[in-house]
This record gives sequence, structure tokens and C-alpha cells, in this order.
Amino acid sequence: MQSDTRPHLVIVGGGFAGLWTARALARAPVRITLLDRCNHHLFQPLLYQVATAGLSAPDIAAPLRHILRKQANATVLLGEAVDIDKAGRRVLLARGEPISYDMLLLATGAGHSYFGNDNWAEHAPGLKTLDDAFAIRRQILTAFERAEAEPDPVLRAAWLTFVIVGGGPTGVELAGTLAEIARHTLRREFRRIDPGQSRVILAEAGPRILTSFPESLSEAARRQLAGLGVEVLTGKAISAIDAEGVLLGEQRLAARTVLWAAGVAASPLGRTLGVPLDRAGRVPVQADLSVAGHPEIFVAGDLATVMQGDRPVPGVAPAAKQMGKHVARCVRARLAGRSTRKFRYADYGNLATIGRMAAIVDVRGLRISGVVAWWFWLAAHVFFLIGFRNRLVVLINWGWSYWTYQRNARIIVGGKHEPPHAGPATPAGN
Amino acid sequence: MQSDTRPHLVIVGGGFAGLWTARALARAPVRITLLDRCNHHLFQPLLYQVATAGLSAPDIAAPLRHILRKQANATVLLGEAVDIDKAGRRVLLARGEPISYDMLLLATGAGHSYFGNDNWAEHAPGLKTLDDAFAIRRQILTAFERAEAEPDPVLRAAWLTFVIVGGGPTGVELAGTLAEIARHTLRREFRRIDPGQSRVILAEAGPRILTSFPESLSEAARRQLAGLGVEVLTGKAISAIDAEGVLLGEQRLAARTVLWAAGVAASPLGRTLGVPLDRAGRVPVQADLSVAGHPEIFVAGDLATVMQGDRPVPGVAPAAKQMGKHVARCVRARLAGRSTRKFRYADYGNLATIGRMAAIVDVRGLRISGVVAWWFWLAAHVFFLIGFRNRLVVLINWGWSYWTYQRNARIIVGGKHEPPHAGPATPAGN
Repeated sequence: MQSDTRPHLVIVGGGFAGLWTARALARAPVRITLLDRCNHHLFQPLLYQVATAGLSAPDIAAPLRHILRKQANATVLLGEAVDIDKAGRRVLLARGEPISYDMLLLATGAGHSYFGNDNWAEHAPGLKTLDDAFAIRRQILTAFERAEAEPDPVLRAAWLTFVIVGGGPTGVELAGTLAEIARHTLRREFRRIDPGQSRVILAEAGPRILTSFPESLSEAARRQLAGLGVEVLTGKAISAIDAEGVLLGEQRLAARTVLWAAGVAASPLGRTLGVPLDRAGRVPVQADLSVAGHPEIFVAGDLATVMQGDRPVPGVAPAAKQMGKHVARCVRARLAGRSTRKFRYADYGNLATIGRMAAIVDVRGLRISGVVAWWFWLAAHVFFLIGFRNRLVVLINWGWSYWTYQRNARIIVGGKHEPPHAGPATPAGN
Repeated sequence: MQSDTRPHLVIVGGGFAGLWTARALARAPVRITLLDRCNHHLFQPLLYQVATAGLSAPDIAAPLRHILRKQANATVLLGEAVDIDKAGRRVLLARGEPISYDMLLLATGAGHSYFGNDNWAEHAPGLKTLDDAFAIRRQILTAFERAEAEPDPVLRAAWLTFVIVGGGPTGVELAGTLAEIARHTLRREFRRIDPGQSRVILAEAGPRILTSFPESLSEAARRQLAGLGVEVLTGKAISAIDAEGVLLGEQRLAARTVLWAAGVAASPLGRTLGVPLDRAGRVPVQADLSVAGHPEIFVAGDLATVMQGDRPVPGVAPAAKQMGKHVARCVRARLAGRSTRKFRYADYGNLATIGRMAAIVDVRGLRISGVVAWWFWLAAHVFFLIGFRNRLVVLINWGWSYWTYQRNARIIVGGKHEPPHAGPATPAGN
């Protein structure tokens, strides 16, 4: 068998940055191995829809090897990287032999930070992966079920109280959608409780929500949330979280469902590079996205931090994609013996949805809110979904959902009950 | 508040039998509580499609309280019944106060039997619930991933060997679909393995597969399976199952994926009635489906066993629905002081699908196999799905799938990897 003399690029992470690097190098004289511990690429901006039972997993995720099936120079491997041997140029895996590389891209993203209170994680799940989305969905739907079966009015109220921590886009999206579920979707389906009496509380420690948007749009969003029945509490930080509720400043809130949408912590893989990291664990990179002293190693996406003028490039999907394409250009430059260029982030603006027919959009000075913004948001998200079938199915699901207020993925699976046969409970997933 | 003087019918189990009883009593002068430990009704005939990544959970399941939302006399509760107090006329729950009843329907169905070898359950999961389907799907997709990453050819072959135990409709459907996945869907997506080299083995202890069909159709199905590349091994029983494979008669088969589709065991709730049960744990009922000595207690669906002429009514979905409707008629009769009638099962025939464009149909003497049978099978299943949106989405998913050989729900979630933050792994579900 002829040996493959092409340089080997290993990409760790199949999110927006890693996947866009791989695709942009389809015709380059390089061999690519894309490693991820998930088999699928996830369209994270719509993850809150899975968490609130509006969409199901296959609508927003696609298997990586399916996406890259026609790209002959790309191999997809399911596996977990645990360390980088920079001297030996190898990626060490949790299982199996290390993978040698000539060039390396780390694009493993970021997860949640509980600001040092890691014990909060058990009671306040975050939303970064499909597993997270399923757990949250199960928790939300079960809360209404528990309320229906609960004779004690105090406990019932606690089951019908939902606290979302963090006033960024994810928190706002979760809060708005949860309020819609309670006030519209589930309204007629219960006999003993009125889901419309739920409390949905959005807690933000800072002075306003959506700080990445101009103040006028933050205010528009706040009004839209209030119109949906969400209580927006700003200026106080969460000081404690347990199984029964939260302590918000001095105020105790009895809530059986607490969702975490505050605080970012970069993937621990960044530490393996042996360079100083920023406060959130992100890897500072050079202007061309390579690591100082290691021109063969690149970092892109949420794991990287790079300045654009006087501000850091935000950790959003379009930025990750652009970084991915830029790394691909750098790889081609290295292969051709040329020098690499600086990364330039093209800021296409900022969008956040609040709920049915409500959103805010801040694009190059154009600021809109309300229904028009929502159509803009919908178009942008559907356009960027991968795959024609996904777009069609998502449009049908959403069309149905927004026409009827129904939500199409309200299935509770997993959890603690035993199946009929005398065997171990099987963990679920879809 | 006025007290409700209507008699209280408690239905345990929201499958075909329980749900059809509830719906048929929408206008009856009775108060209904439908209790299930799942929040959803499951269209079990298509469960194998979720297990083989062709459909996702919401396509074949719908929340019970959503289905019954417009039925004012019905309340849905999420909970688990653990015992029946026949003297006190109460259903005892795992959590919460007992529920008193005037009339009771037990319709909790059946699960798997491992013929006394309960330790096999860990290595050979069965397919009865959505949790089962997700676990199987994860196992199947991961097997191909493990094979791709495995350097040892012997281990690789074990990862690419799949054994399905049991030659009834479920086993045949799983085997046929698995073979299609390996030979078509995944064919181009791997670089180191050829999924087409997988072995899919269907093991049946009896002399032929599909014993509920006439011999000619069993033979047609066997040929269709062979055409898909499935090895059908009959006449030998599985004598051992462990993490590495199975012992089939004297033959050792190294297989990392073993699926169980043999043996039925009725829900343990049948034992709480204190009547002698049949060999599989089913409750023998009188001609009107009530329990001997307890005219206020009915049993329907897979949990019941009742004779039709000289043969027992089969444990299939149409039989469960008919029993459900019959119990509703009996309830109305009791409310009106009339006597109840015998249950008459209308046998609409038998269908099983083998794979893409292949099925067998045995309806009232009409015996067809092949593509025509498959269209018949598709029409019948889609027609019986609950909900227009489900039918539309399933048709689209299937249309796409059968046109392109793609499978639309190939997402692996759950399993053992840790999320980025320092919190416990969350169990998944969708």
C-alpha cells in the first residue's frame, strides 16, 4: 500500500470552528483527522429549542461523518483527547493509541462556569450539549407533572416556579420560551393546576440583560419578556442554589427548576498547551490564530481569545466559522511556504429571540425589535442550518408550532423508573 | 365546590388498550384518571425505527395529556402503580397518596423475558420503550465508531458483528433495517472500515422465523432477509450471552452488539390481582375482559390473555385497541345496569416489514410479499399513527430516507463522557 506523504492536520472538535476548517480544506494537499467525543455537529443556537421541547435532536444536529462523507481527505473519529504532547506532536486519547500530527487545531469550545460553586451544577443544569438539553427538557416537563399530582399548595407553587440564571441570549431565550409553554402550550392540558400561574424568573446579576446589545434593544427585550409574563430581576447575584430553590441577594425563592445560563469556562484542553490562559480559561492566540512559539498549532472558536481592535472577538457562531475558515487559509499558506495573515472578524451583528414572534436585531447600526426582527432571526437561523432536510423539517415543526402553540418534542424519557424486565435501567438518548 | 358524584374509572397504562378505553368514554357519565409512568403514548410498531435511527422519538410518540386535552372527564397523571388493594378499591402508587376507584382497568402491557437468564439483560437489551430504543441506537452507532477506531482486525470484526435473538416481527424488522444501515446508509462514511462487511445474524430457536405467519410467507421473508445480507440461523437456541458475544448451540459468535427480541413477560402488576397467571405472567380474563370474582376490574392489552375460539387473542396493537373499546362498552353497560357482552376479536391479519420496500402481509387469506406488501404496510402504519403532524413528518422523514438511504436520527447522545464543566454527567433523553 502506498504510504500517504501528505501532511497530517488533526482537528480536535467538530463544532463550528473545527468543521468549517475541515470543509474549507477539501481540496488542499493535506490529510485531515477530525476528532470529537460526540458523533454529531450541533447547531447550538437552537439548542434551547430542544431544551424546551420545540424541536428534537436530529433537527439541529447531524453526524459529522455524514457531513464529511464526500470529502476524501477527511477521516472522522469518535474519541476524546485528554492531552497534547507538543514536543512529540501527538494527541493523547482517553482510549486507544495517540494520534500524530503535523499541524493541530484545537477547537473544543467552552462550557459553563459556576464561578467556583461547582456544587451548583447538580441543581442548576446548563445548556451546551444535547445531553444538557434533554435533561433540562425532562426537568421542565416533569415539573408540571409533579405539580399536577401534588396536593400541597406550597410545594405545588415551588414546582411551578422556574428560575433562569443569566441574562444573556441563552437565558433570555429559555425564559421567554418557558413562559410561552406555561401560558399557551400546556394551558388546557392539566386539570388540577393552571400552568398559566407559573412563575418564570430571569435573574441577572448585572444592571441589565443582554449587555452585548445596545441599551435600547435590551430595554425592548425586557418589555417583550414582561409581556410574556417573565419576571426580570436585575442587579442581584445568586448566592446559593440547592434542591429547593435559590438565594437571590437576600431573597429566598422556592423553585424546583433552576437553569444555568451564566458564566463561560473554556474547555480544559486549553490547559494542555502550557501557555497562560485568560480568566475564563481561553487560549490567547496570535493575530493569525496560532499559538505563540508553536506555528503548527492553531486554536479557534470559543476556546480562543483574540483581539479585534480594542475588543475581543465574541464567542458566537459566526465568529467561530470565520476563524475556522481563517485557519484553513493559514494551513494552505504553510503548505505552500507562504506567510500567514491576520484574522479579521467581520461583525455581522447580533440577534436574540425572546419568544414567539419577538426578537431583537442589531446589525451594522440597524436596530429592530418585535415581529420583523423575529422573521429576520428565523431566516438567519434556518439558512445556516446544515442540510436541506433539516431546514424543511424545522420549518414544518416551527410552522405547526407557531400556528398552534403546540410544541412538537414533548416526550419525557430517561429518569429513574425501572423497565418491566428484571434488568438494569438503560440510560436514554435521542 | 360541588362534589363529583360520577363513578371513578382508573386506567393504569396509556398504551393502545388504556388510551382507547379512555377515548371511547369521552361522553360517558364517568370520571377517568389515566395513570402512566411515562408521559407519552408510544406507537410501538415503529419503535424499531427509532432503535435504528430512522425516526426520532416525537415522530412516534405523543404526550398523553395532549391527546386527551379536550376530554373534560379525563385527568392524566404521571406516576407508577405498585399494588392494587382490591378490598379497599385503591391503586397504591410509588409516590403519593393511593387513588381510589369504582372501576379499574389494568393495561400495563408486557416486557421482555430472558427465560430465567436475567443476567443476559445487561448485554442484550430488548425493545419495548423509547429508553430501550435510544440505548439500542446508541449501541449500534457506537459499534461502527469503535470499529473505525480499532486497529486489531479480530476486535474490529466483533464490533461489526450484530446478533438479533428472536425471529418474530421485531427481530426481523431490526435485522433487516440493521443490514440496510450497514450496506447502504453508512457505506461511504467510513475510511478504515467497510460497513458492508458487517455480519447481521438473526437467531431463532424454532424451526422457522415469523411463526405467526403461514410457512410460505415465512419463507418469502427469509429470502428477502438473505437478499439484504442477513444470516438467518434457525433451530438452535442461545445458551449464553456475555459482553463479548453469544453461544448459539455449540457455536461461539464474537459480537459486541446483541439485541433481544425473543420472549414476552407481562407487567408485574398482574401479580397484584391474586389470580393464577399464565406462563408469561398474563392475567386470564373472562369473556367480557373482567377478572373472575371482580366485575369492577378489567384487564386489556398485552397484560390479558383471552381465548377466541381455540386460540388466544394475539398480543398485537389492533387487538389491544379492540379490547380497549370493548372495556369501554362494558363500563357503559355497568353504569346503565345492563349486562356485559363477550369480547370478539376481529382479526385484520398480520403484517411485518423486512426492510426497504419489502414486507409480508397476511390479511384474511390474501398473502402478499415484496414491494406491494410494503406499500400496504406503510399505509396501515401511517394511517394508525396519532396526529396529522406526526403523519406528515414521518412521511417526509421516510420519503427522504427511502429515496436516499439516509437515516434521519443518527445522533448519539448519553453514554459515559463527561461534560466540560465539573458537574455530574446528566442522563439524556429525547
